[in-house]
Amino acid sequence: MKGRVLNGMRPTGKLHLGNYLGSVVNMVDLQEEYDCYFSIVDWHALTTGYEDTSQLQDNILSIAIDWLSAGVDPDKSVVFVQSNVKEHAELHLLLSMVTPLAWVERVPTYKEQLRQLETRNIATYGFLGYPVLMTADILAYKADTIPVGEDQLPHIEIAREIARRFNFLYQCSVFPEAEAKLTKFAWLPGIDGRKMSKSYGNEIHMSSTPDEIRTKVSQMITDPARIRKTDPGHPEVCVPYQFYKAFASNTEESVANECRGAKVGCVACKRRLADIIVERMAPIYERQQELKRRPDDVFDVLREGAKKAQIAANNTLVEMREAMNLRDF
Amino acid sequence: MKGRVLNGMRPTGKLHLGNYLGSVVNMVDLQEEYDCYFSIVDWHALTTGYEDTSQLQDNILSIAIDWLSAGVDPDKSVVFVQSNVKEHAELHLLLSMVTPLAWVERVPTYKEQLRQLETRNIATYGFLGYPVLMTADILAYKADTIPVGEDQLPHIEIAREIARRFNFLYQCSVFPEAEAKLTKFAWLPGIDGRKMSKSYGNEIHMSSTPDEIRTKVSQMITDPARIRKTDPGHPEVCVPYQFYKAFASNTEESVANECRGAKVGCVACKRRLADIIVERMAPIYERQQELKRRPDDVFDVLREGAKKAQIAANNTLVEMREAMNLRDF
Repeated sequence: MKGRVLNGMRPTGKLHLGNYLGSVVNMVDLQEEYDCYFSIVDWHALTTGYEDTSQLQDNILSIAIDWLSAGVDPDKSVVFVQSNVKEHAELHLLLSMVTPLAWVERVPTYKEQLRQLETRNIATYGFLGYPVLMTADILAYKADTIPVGEDQLPHIEIAREIARRFNFLYQCSVFPEAEAKLTKFAWLPGIDGRKMSKSYGNEIHMSSTPDEIRTKVSQMITDPARIRKTDPGHPEVCVPYQFYKAFASNTEESVANECRGAKVGCVACKRRLADIIVERMAPIYERQQELKRRPDDVFDVLREGAKKAQIAANNTLVEMREAMNLRDF
Repeated sequence: MKGRVLNGMRPTGKLHLGNYLGSVVNMVDLQEEYDCYFSIVDWHALTTGYEDTSQLQDNILSIAIDWLSAGVDPDKSVVFVQSNVKEHAELHLLLSMVTPLAWVERVPTYKEQLRQLETRNIATYGFLGYPVLMTADILAYKADTIPVGEDQLPHIEIAREIARRFNFLYQCSVFPEAEAKLTKFAWLPGIDGRKMSKSYGNEIHMSSTPDEIRTKVSQMITDPARIRKTDPGHPEVCVPYQFYKAFASNTEESVANECRGAKVGCVACKRRLADIIVERMAPIYERQQELKRRPDDVFDVLREGAKKAQIAANNTLVEMREAMNLRDF
């Protein structure tokens, strides 16, 4: 039997090239080998963003378009918006009953985010429970394989613990224990060398136009010690070089040599990089433009995806309710 | 326009005569004047009873039968089981996002119950959130009138605060602020003089047979200072006297005088009380027997009630989702 993947993305902004290489490329690969559930987790976005939801629908549409344009295939994978599958809310509620408070309080990202986002009032009951909601997302589909980065491992651990506790309490084997599948990819900085992030405005979006990509690449920070074109450069401290490694790893060595040997100037080097990125993103860009013209087709995909997800999640709930002696009259 | 009442009962045991006089009689009265939503709140029962759910369905059926037998009329009121109206789970989740953690942590009954039930592992995420779930129950129907005892006032207060906060955050007027309607009734002790409670085994159930009622009444604690029939009694320390006050307030004075004057013995006095209670409960008992023979009719009532409740709750959710910029595709 095929393994089952659950991958969620919060609609808190547009996807950037870091998301593309770190997550979306991976999703497109995974769907060949796994039954995939790809969810735009809007309820999760509320945990930190409930105060301003004005961009929520734009972000959802944008992510859906980026996914589909990059090769996520609704004939192979179930693509849906979390809040359209109400079963997640019931699952979350039932799981909340068996989840010790101490387990959610000790999740490392919880206190960290409380600190990071202290200007927002995120110390809510819902924010505290986001690991339970994440667990519900996973267990709804009995997913066994969760593609995550290292920082997400505690969430997989709590999902495994809740699954185990449910099975133990109700003497059943409703839930498998999901395994993390660590995604490995070249780390991409923002154009200023810091973490690529909406809050720094240093991103290149998956939906950037070719011109926007060229402008952003031209603004990338290069080796500050290389003042004249004839000065030898240090690729390891150069932002464009990180992008070469990620987007054209086959040219990585020759680019480094040219830089160290001062054989190419930064302007020309960045222009060449921009060409590589623009060319790589061109077919995606084209499909994005097409899908933007017919958003209803995207909504159809999300609607159909939600229907499939509902069926799967409801099957799980039937088993859970039976285990817990709950009954629908 | 008629006011709207929400009344919930946890299916943690059978209803006793304290519940009957303190809640059920009141429900039957309320349905003449209000649109009433009467809910058997099984998800709430999980907050403290998730570890053993073996009695849950028996308790649900028993409460439904007791309600219907006592005069709750499904043609006048919406009678349903909470978990059958999944909308409560979505409402609870959405409200959890806007509910400051400090608000749920400070609810007095929270820490009190943690202490009282320390043998059970109730320090769960779901138990912490029960005031949010209660708020969801109320707001689902935009209930404006909540019949409660004094001890429940903090729950109404948090429901009002959450409603206000939601309206403020999303600049809307989706929710009214519910008002508590304090229920007044003669307090009924258990047959041993302590609080009537399942854990003491000192209850008389609404579904007790006439013989069981007679036996329980005969076991009631009377004035310990009245040893001989000729000793004057002190009705204020006598359990049967509390029941006289509740079930036959018109005879209250004469009974007290007979007791103080040693004109009637405790055995005879209790026998007379048993007659009064048995007579009062007789028509209810008869309907209970009838409904027990056809539980499917009770399930039909609960199913129809859930359908009506779903429609109302879903209307509320449509408004909430719009206010929060959530969208069903």
